[in-house]
This record gives sequence, C-alpha cells and structure tokens, in this order.
Amino acid sequence: MHLNRLSLLNFKNIREAQLDFSPRINCFVGDNGTGKTNLLDAIHYLSMCKSAFGLSDSQCVRHGDEGFVVNGIYSTPTGRNETIVCTYQRGNAKKLSRGGKEYEKLSDHIGLLPIVMIAPSDTALINESGEERRRYLNSLISQLDRDYLSALIRYNHILAERNKLLKNQGSANFNEILEVFDMQLAALGTALHKRRRELIEELAPLAAQAYLKLSEDREQVELTYRSELNETPMDELLRLTRTKDLVNQFTTGGVHRDDIRMSIGGYPLRKYGSQGQQKSFLVALKLAQYDIVAAHCGHRPILLLDDIFDKLDMQRVEQLIGIVSDERFGQIFITDCNKVRLEGILSGNRCDYTLFSVADGTVAAPQPELSSTGQEP
Amino acid sequence: MHLNRLSLLNFKNIREAQLDFSPRINCFVGDNGTGKTNLLDAIHYLSMCKSAFGLSDSQCVRHGDEGFVVNGIYSTPTGRNETIVCTYQRGNAKKLSRGGKEYEKLSDHIGLLPIVMIAPSDTALINESGEERRRYLNSLISQLDRDYLSALIRYNHILAERNKLLKNQGSANFNEILEVFDMQLAALGTALHKRRRELIEELAPLAAQAYLKLSEDREQVELTYRSELNETPMDELLRLTRTKDLVNQFTTGGVHRDDIRMSIGGYPLRKYGSQGQQKSFLVALKLAQYDIVAAHCGHRPILLLDDIFDKLDMQRVEQLIGIVSDERFGQIFITDCNKVRLEGILSGNRCDYTLFSVADGTVAAPQPELSSTGQEP
Repeated sequence: MHLNRLSLLNFKNIREAQLDFSPRINCFVGDNGTGKTNLLDAIHYLSMCKSAFGLSDSQCVRHGDEGFVVNGIYSTPTGRNETIVCTYQRGNAKKLSRGGKEYEKLSDHIGLLPIVMIAPSDTALINESGEERRRYLNSLISQLDRDYLSALIRYNHILAERNKLLKNQGSANFNEILEVFDMQLAALGTALHKRRRELIEELAPLAAQAYLKLSEDREQVELTYRSELNETPMDELLRLTRTKDLVNQFTTGGVHRDDIRMSIGGYPLRKYGSQGQQKSFLVALKLAQYDIVAAHCGHRPILLLDDIFDKLDMQRVEQLIGIVSDERFGQIFITDCNKVRLEGILSGNRCDYTLFSVADGTVAAPQPELSSTGQEP
Repeated sequence: MHLNRLSLLNFKNIREAQLDFSPRINCFVGDNGTGKTNLLDAIHYLSMCKSAFGLSDSQCVRHGDEGFVVNGIYSTPTGRNETIVCTYQRGNAKKLSRGGKEYEKLSDHIGLLPIVMIAPSDTALINESGEERRRYLNSLISQLDRDYLSALIRYNHILAERNKLLKNQGSANFNEILEVFDMQLAALGTALHKRRRELIEELAPLAAQAYLKLSEDREQVELTYRSELNETPMDELLRLTRTKDLVNQFTTGGVHRDDIRMSIGGYPLRKYGSQGQQKSFLVALKLAQYDIVAAHCGHRPILLLDDIFDKLDMQRVEQLIGIVSDERFGQIFITDCNKVRLEGILSGNRCDYTLFSVADGTVAAPQPELSSTGQEP
C-alpha cells in the first residue's frame, strides 16, 4: 500500500497542492516554517484521522479559511487504487470516506493504512510520566488487535466506577459491589497484561537489535515491561491492596500503573543517556514497531521521518538511511531543512529518491535534474 | 569574566580532563554519546552549582566512582584569576569554594558567573504548563534581584498557609487570620507582579527584535505577560475571589497563576509555530535574556549553545552565528556532532574559534591545524 497522489486544500499553511509520489523515498526540503512537517501531518491524517501533533481539526485549517480537504490516492498490493478523503468544515464533524463511501465510525478506518512516524517530539516517551508510555503501548496494540482496545475501554470504565465507589464506602451493598468490580477488573487486567507482555517480548529484542545497528555496536539498550502483574496475579493484587485502597479511596494496584523501563548500559536512559543516545533509542523503538506492524498486517506501513538529522550524528544517520533503504521498507517520506546534506547522504547510499522543495506553503513538483529517479511529475 | 581552564575528575562520562579555552568561541565536536553536552554541564555547575538538565549530584558522578571534582579558573575583567571548585562525594553535601574559601550558602555564588544556555530541551518552555514559564521567569529575575527571590519565597509560604487555612474553615479566628494572610499576600503579590511586568517589558522588544534578525524579517513574534494583576490589584482580586476560595478551599487568584503568552503572526506559537519557528523563538528569547543579564551585571555572561543546528535551517544558523560573533558577546561554548558543517559555518563567518574533539569521554586538546586561532593548548 503506498500513496500515489496527495491533494490538499487549505490544510495548515498549504493553500493548494497536488503531489505525485514515488513508491520509495520522497523528501520534502525547505527552510523553517515552510510547511514540510505539515505535509507529513496530512499523510498522518489519511491513516489515523487526526493530526500527529495533538492539534484539533480546526487548528489544521489554514488561517482565514473555513475548512480543509485532504485527498489521497493509494495503490494496494493487488494493484487497485483506493481513494481516501478527509474533509473538515469549521463547526462540523470531520468526515472520512473510502472509495466515495463515508465511514460511519472513523475508528473502522484505523489499521487500513498503517503508518509509523519518527519525530523530534517522540522524546516525550522518555521524559514524560508513565502515562505517556502506556498511551504509546495502548495505541500500538490497538492497531494490531481490536479486542485489546475494547478490553482497555472496559477496564478504564470499571476502574473509574470502582474509584467512585471507594469514595462512598457507606453506600448500600458496598462490599458486594466491590467484589463484582474486582472480578471484572481481574479478568480484564489479566488480559491486558498478557497482551502487553507479549508485545514487549516481541518489541524488546527488535529494538535492541536496531539500536546496535544504529550505534554500530557501540552501546546496548534494554526495554523491559514493568507491571505489578509480573509478580502477582490481578485478583490477588486487588486482595492485597484492598486495605490501602479503602484508606486512599482509589485503586492503588493494577495495569493502570504499568510502565516501560528503558535503559542504556544498565542505567536509566532518561538520566544517563545523552540526547543523541535517547534519540537513537526512539528511532530503534519505532523501527521495531515498523517490523511488528508490517508482520501483523501483511504489508509495509508508510514510514514518516520528520527532521531526519535531529540529534543524530552522521554515522547514525548513515546507518538509519542504510536500514530503511532495505527493501523490507516500503514508501518513506523524509523532511529536512538542508537539501545539500540530505541529497549527499541519500546519493552516497545509492538510494532512489524524489525530492520536493517546499517554500512558504507551496510545494514544487520534482524537477528531473533534482531527482535521482528523474521521473516526471 | 571568562573561563580559562576547566579541570574535571569523574564528572559524568569524563574520567579526567584539563582544557584551556579561548576567551571567544570554543567548539566541542564529536559523535552521539561522547560527552559534548557533559562539558557544557560542567561549566553550568560552576555558575549555578547544579546540572542544567535536572540531574542530581550523584547522577553526575561517573559510573563506579565515588565523587566528582569540577575546577574552573576564570579571568575577571580586571585581569585577576578566580578559582571556583565544586566537589561532591556520594552521601555528602556538595561543596563549592571560591579562591580556596568554601561558601556557607551555595546561593551566595549565584550571579557571580552569569551564564545563558540554549539547548534542545528549552522546548518545555513552549510545550509544558504555565508553571514551567513561571519557573523560567523566577529564575531569571532571581539572578538579577535578590529581593525578588526572598519575596517569592515568602509569597509561596503564605500562599501555602492560606490554602491550609481554607481547608479548616471552622478553626478559631478564621476570618481574622485570613485577613492577615490577604494583607501579606497583597503586598508581596503586588511587588512580584511589578518586577515581572518590568522584566517582560524589557525582554519582549529585545526578543522580537532578535527573532526578526534570525528569520531575516520573515516572521513576527510577540511575548506578553498574562496576569490577573494586569487588570485588578491583588488586594481587590483577593476580595473578589473570596467566595470562590471558600468553596474551592484554595486560593484561586494571584501571581501564582501568571503566564507568558508567546505568539507568531498573532497566533499561539505552541499550536501554530513550526518546530523551526518554535526553536527560533527560544533562541531569540535567550539572546534577549543575555542582553538583560549583561546590562545588569556589567559584564558579559558565558553563552552555552548546545546542539547549535537543532531544528534551525542554514540561514538561521548563519544569522545566529552572525549575531553571537558580535563583540557584545563574550566567551561562547558550542556543541555539534558534525565537525565539517560547524567549521564550515564558522570560517564562512570569519569567526575566531578553537575546536575540541570529544570521543568517548576524552577531549583532545585543540591542534594548531584544527583551530583558526592556531593557539597552542
């Protein structure tokens, strides 16, 4: 599945654009604030129905306009074309259609066009609280497994109900209702824990391997799943924490407190990893995620590399380009503010790429002399 | 005031180093994870008695060692030498001495060796909550004005007491004590507000001007002070929010809710600025801060530029180098992972610089042929 043509209308700073892409490497180059990342965000919209940067739909409308249209024509592995259109008008709900037919639920679309993005803002995964890492894990597993998402929603719902109950310990049938909640939480928590453990068992060695490659065997990293359920089954945990829960008036143990531990050379990555090492870790994690998503859905996700030189030294960028130019990767979109260095590293690696120059919200079609593929737009 | 010689022992990944610096531009170049930023952090320690990255002292000790020593010999504007030594042993309090005499209070040292740092992690100022921006403001004004810091400490103390009181509304003499707290808060809040307003009135035009220069007049940014006290005096504010405070059981109005608004072209920078524009804003803000600190203390702060190419396009890095190579800037330390591009841009701007190669915690003394100043170590 790759994106053949992207058409935009009033999306962020881009008034209008129609771009034809290579099925392999596409590069957006331009100065700060010209709109490179906005092009990636439009592609993200077509896969995930929302901005990759936490912006609301209305914040993605060009200043002074009333709505946006993002239109993508994809080629499926079987050679058919699929048209996905996302439209939004201020004050209305956004609409998404596939082949002219509007989705009833946007969530039905998630997973059809898998996508993996590497961006400077990924550092939140290292620097922010465990909630951020749980959100990452939940979003990744949900793309692979719809049952996981529904179990998660039910777990969170019952957890909220149980916490409400713990604040009203004098209410009728308190003990009986608590028992029912505990049984439900135990079943759901156990299922969530199993799925998370399986995913991290798959993810951890792939990420460690990708990191070794990026750093040319210079450093070793580790990713481990932290959960109270690793030692104690959820039903037993709820029994053990019962007294504490009654005092604190909320549920003190469970998979809602899970975390991922990231370390380098045995020390916590957040405190002891340099900025370049932290970035390398995040790149390795996303490459591992790419392999897992690809294996699961049977075709290659689109890879978005925002600001590819961000914090990485030349050796590591070379390694990264070397990794993604392998044919197990499909279509790739790269942004960089420096055309010369990006072209240098791509042609040095004998990569086939198409280059788009972005200036002030306008995207120039690739010129034959600018592109190593020499293809006409 | 500039740093002539830095000696390190077991600081982070650096076992031992003794470096002689140029009074102008010093560059640390090396691959990811070699220790470039750790050198900047050591210089930060000598000025601010702590890490610039929120690490504890023990986290700054080299793995497997028992303590660190950071020793700096500075030249004062009058030509004298000042030796500052910071030593830390695990399990003990860190010690700081000036000219062999140990400080009783570390805070007495703050302000002697002013420093301004520009680093990738500055983005927290844009992306995090108002607390982060208040912390920035407080730390900046405290460096300029000791009375401000003591007023701030008292304000926070009385605020905490008032909130405690609001949770015990049945306590004896409740109304009388609340009145006393309100009088004290009003006086302190008014003083803090005045000082913050003055600082931002000074900072805002300087930052806007620096941004214009960085972006070569392409974009306009604005920095404004948001405070309830801009419209309502603190004593009146406390009267107006009294009922709300009694219901909520905490103080809902005051300078503890101040914020700084940052905008680009009239729109919020956080949502509408690109990553490069946000970075440019932060650089402009720090350059404005530099000018204010320099004017206040009568000599030029040391400027630390960590990862100078982070998110900026070539034009903006050129502009930045152009700005800081002006003689109103003093000693500068720059890190970058790419020696060729850094040397290219510095020599292109005819800058006088000394270059140190960092590899795996070891810093090579500048070689005559590597340095445009040609000075021997």
